[in-house]
Amino acid sequence: MDESVQRLDAFFNPKSVAVIGATKKAGKAGCVIFENLAVNKREGVYTGELYPVNPSEDSLLGFKCYEALSKIPVDEIDLVVIIVPSKAVAAVMEEAVAKKVKAAVIITAGFKEVGNKDLEDQVINIAKKGNIRVLGPNCLGIFYRKSGIDTLFLPEMKTLSTGKTVIATPRPLSGNIAMITQSGAFGSAALDYLTGREMGVSKFVSFGNKSDVSESDILNYLFHDDETKVILVYLEDVKGGRDFIEIAKKVTLKKPVVVIKSGRSSAGALAAASHTGAIAGSDKVYDAAFTQCGVIRARSMDEFFDFGKALAMQPPAIGRNMGVLTDAGGPGVMTVDELETQGLTAEHFKPETAEKFEQLKKEGKILAIAATHNPVDLTGSVTDDQFIVSVDIMFEDKNIDGIILLGLHHMPGLQEKYIEGTVTVARKYDKPIVVVDIGETEMALYTRSRFDRLGVPSFGSPEAAARAMKALVWYGEYLTKNDGIDAYLDNYKKNAEVKL
Amino acid sequence: MDESVQRLDAFFNPKSVAVIGATKKAGKAGCVIFENLAVNKREGVYTGELYPVNPSEDSLLGFKCYEALSKIPVDEIDLVVIIVPSKAVAAVMEEAVAKKVKAAVIITAGFKEVGNKDLEDQVINIAKKGNIRVLGPNCLGIFYRKSGIDTLFLPEMKTLSTGKTVIATPRPLSGNIAMITQSGAFGSAALDYLTGREMGVSKFVSFGNKSDVSESDILNYLFHDDETKVILVYLEDVKGGRDFIEIAKKVTLKKPVVVIKSGRSSAGALAAASHTGAIAGSDKVYDAAFTQCGVIRARSMDEFFDFGKALAMQPPAIGRNMGVLTDAGGPGVMTVDELETQGLTAEHFKPETAEKFEQLKKEGKILAIAATHNPVDLTGSVTDDQFIVSVDIMFEDKNIDGIILLGLHHMPGLQEKYIEGTVTVARKYDKPIVVVDIGETEMALYTRSRFDRLGVPSFGSPEAAARAMKALVWYGEYLTKNDGIDAYLDNYKKNAEVKL
Repeated sequence: MDESVQRLDAFFNPKSVAVIGATKKAGKAGCVIFENLAVNKREGVYTGELYPVNPSEDSLLGFKCYEALSKIPVDEIDLVVIIVPSKAVAAVMEEAVAKKVKAAVIITAGFKEVGNKDLEDQVINIAKKGNIRVLGPNCLGIFYRKSGIDTLFLPEMKTLSTGKTVIATPRPLSGNIAMITQSGAFGSAALDYLTGREMGVSKFVSFGNKSDVSESDILNYLFHDDETKVILVYLEDVKGGRDFIEIAKKVTLKKPVVVIKSGRSSAGALAAASHTGAIAGSDKVYDAAFTQCGVIRARSMDEFFDFGKALAMQPPAIGRNMGVLTDAGGPGVMTVDELETQGLTAEHFKPETAEKFEQLKKEGKILAIAATHNPVDLTGSVTDDQFIVSVDIMFEDKNIDGIILLGLHHMPGLQEKYIEGTVTVARKYDKPIVVVDIGETEMALYTRSRFDRLGVPSFGSPEAAARAMKALVWYGEYLTKNDGIDAYLDNYKKNAEVKL
Repeated sequence: MDESVQRLDAFFNPKSVAVIGATKKAGKAGCVIFENLAVNKREGVYTGELYPVNPSEDSLLGFKCYEALSKIPVDEIDLVVIIVPSKAVAAVMEEAVAKKVKAAVIITAGFKEVGNKDLEDQVINIAKKGNIRVLGPNCLGIFYRKSGIDTLFLPEMKTLSTGKTVIATPRPLSGNIAMITQSGAFGSAALDYLTGREMGVSKFVSFGNKSDVSESDILNYLFHDDETKVILVYLEDVKGGRDFIEIAKKVTLKKPVVVIKSGRSSAGALAAASHTGAIAGSDKVYDAAFTQCGVIRARSMDEFFDFGKALAMQPPAIGRNMGVLTDAGGPGVMTVDELETQGLTAEHFKPETAEKFEQLKKEGKILAIAATHNPVDLTGSVTDDQFIVSVDIMFEDKNIDGIILLGLHHMPGLQEKYIEGTVTVARKYDKPIVVVDIGETEMALYTRSRFDRLGVPSFGSPEAAARAMKALVWYGEYLTKNDGIDAYLDNYKKNAEVKL
């Protein structure tokens, strides 16, 4: 880990944090953020020092409060979180330089994004004097569950007018997906989505105006972060295109990077410019750049998260020909439709595979009327065992590069035994499998959640699964073309945990 | 209502039902179906007569059991549900003719779909002698909550290996969406989806092999059905193309029809042929036919339900220019991106609208830095009142044909008051509004559900909302082109209920 990466680590693992603008005024950003950190310190999650700074208070939540950053009686502070009004930020940064601060998160808005570029430049110039890395301004900052750093000013709970308190901006559990975002609003929405879908997060970074720390810096940091297996990035523009491409090329050989870049349409680009002052540039240029450096681009929010889920859980595919295994004819056909739309195939099996299925029919283990050419349709008479044996036969076929399994739980003879059964079989192979169950009530939710927890990504529609498989294929092709597939798969196997 | 429509009514509102193959063997189709009807009769939902037929039983669930259909001591029976093995169906049908049966649902599989076309023809020829309309074979049949007819053999609950009983194939509440399907598996999945998403169903019909009653017949029946406002159709092929086009043309002037036709790819068409023996024909021919008769085609399962939801709740749009109103800049840009992808626009406002927003800024009612050209970005400082007044201003603009409202609930100053507020304002106008909130935890689910219940369709992503709006635009254009828009809107207004 080089020195620049080490400096960024102060954002995630600081030994001391000062919150400039901490307050007891409920609902205020300075209240929510300080409370996040105070609670995490009290619970032993955050183990460093914590200093609230507010000239009007003596103490906050049991912590001695300081009049100014300069008044904190220590020589060095790792991280400052700045929530004071924009005009007061430069003075705080001067004090931060004196305190040998390593990293500063500027939550405050009202800088470049509303035309105050000079003010932003002034703050950054001061920070540079002191070699302070700055995240923001105009951002949510950091959420890192393991170290207890949580600078999100959006309260976790809200109280409805009925008096009922509900989860509003949840913090996801720890996991292997890093989420980094230019838009704070999209970031908070992403936390909500990821929590609800039980997708664990390694590091969350909202970088806002990226006056100093950019997406490239964070990608480089995450390259070295063993807790991160896949990186999700929301962008409106890219700062320093050449650097980005160079860093992304390095990162994507080791871990997949999925980007959603808004402003992809001309009208959207215009709207983005008015939103963040982002000069979006031609979307085709972005497309070409992302392709060149192995970044997987999602075209919609659902794709964005679905791609991330698939890549976090499964190895890439080493070819485009998929096996489709289903207990529901119609949804099986829908899967094949979307595979073809995505440029993938579901070719008929090789003779030896077809022969194995014929043998199963002869033995009465699957219905004589089951379709077994690919897609394999075990029909509504499916049983758990039929699914398990079929996954094995299909994966054994060298022409099959991955499997989409549609286990619609409605079929009377299907229980949940096939879930662990198919997962166990799939783990024998270095090929990806993704699963579909359709429905939004108990057993569908149970089935999908169970597969997810066992490391097989589940989806609620045939098309979502086919598109997620496409991401695995695309990434596999990129790695192969760039001589990275063997190293990636070695690393994948090393890290594959037995979760059953 | 002509006589052919009246005959079909026996499927939904029979005065007497015989279940041929009723049994007490748990899990068997004949057990599930008879129990559905018996429970509904006991609870007073189904008010007609109910006759189980099974030569081995004296009684079932307290109902006297008959040795054969012919042994039931009445002259006429409206509906028979047939669950006996395929070889026994023809004999049952002969008895049905003698009993002056009006309608028969053949659940049994093993006919044309597995190559036994002759057997199927034989059964249908018998039925024709007696003027009996036949649904199926190889289908789930009917679910109509209001009359208690439920021929679905998929049990509502399943017991997991842990002993816990969970909802597996739920029956949706009553509502204004009709769902008709060629694939039973897709049908049961649809019931699960619609229930979980709180989308009420007027009539559910799974028609399987459509040996007699086809999608066209059902469309014609639903044309006359006041409970049905929008019709969702899953198809693998169309039987009698000219009839279909003629009937669909009539229906779509009165209520929207959304189709998902699988086998849209060449590989998918091949798989469909192996699944149901459907000769799918060229997909382009289908595309052209659907366009010609005003049928809205969905390209994915999510689109299918999203289109249905939007069309069931909102009027069509009379133009392509949308207003985008957001408290989250990034997701606002994503919405504009997808609108442009779908061929819609989000043009800057006319001067008088811009002036109204300027006035709000002067009065301090919205932030001075809010973007107000379209998209309108009220920023994270949004309040409920800001949303309400903005919806009104935007709808007043004659260039605005519909609104996509992104109310990300994470913003600290946003409560739930804006939900009823914006819905009330929107009801003053005959233009559509759709809503987005992103997230999968409590407050997101609450917000979306609340909007849905108030008749404003909510979506979990910007792209889903933009695509649903496209369906409303497409339908509006079709109606306008075919001189149907005024009549449709008159009818829409007449039926609009005050649900607040």
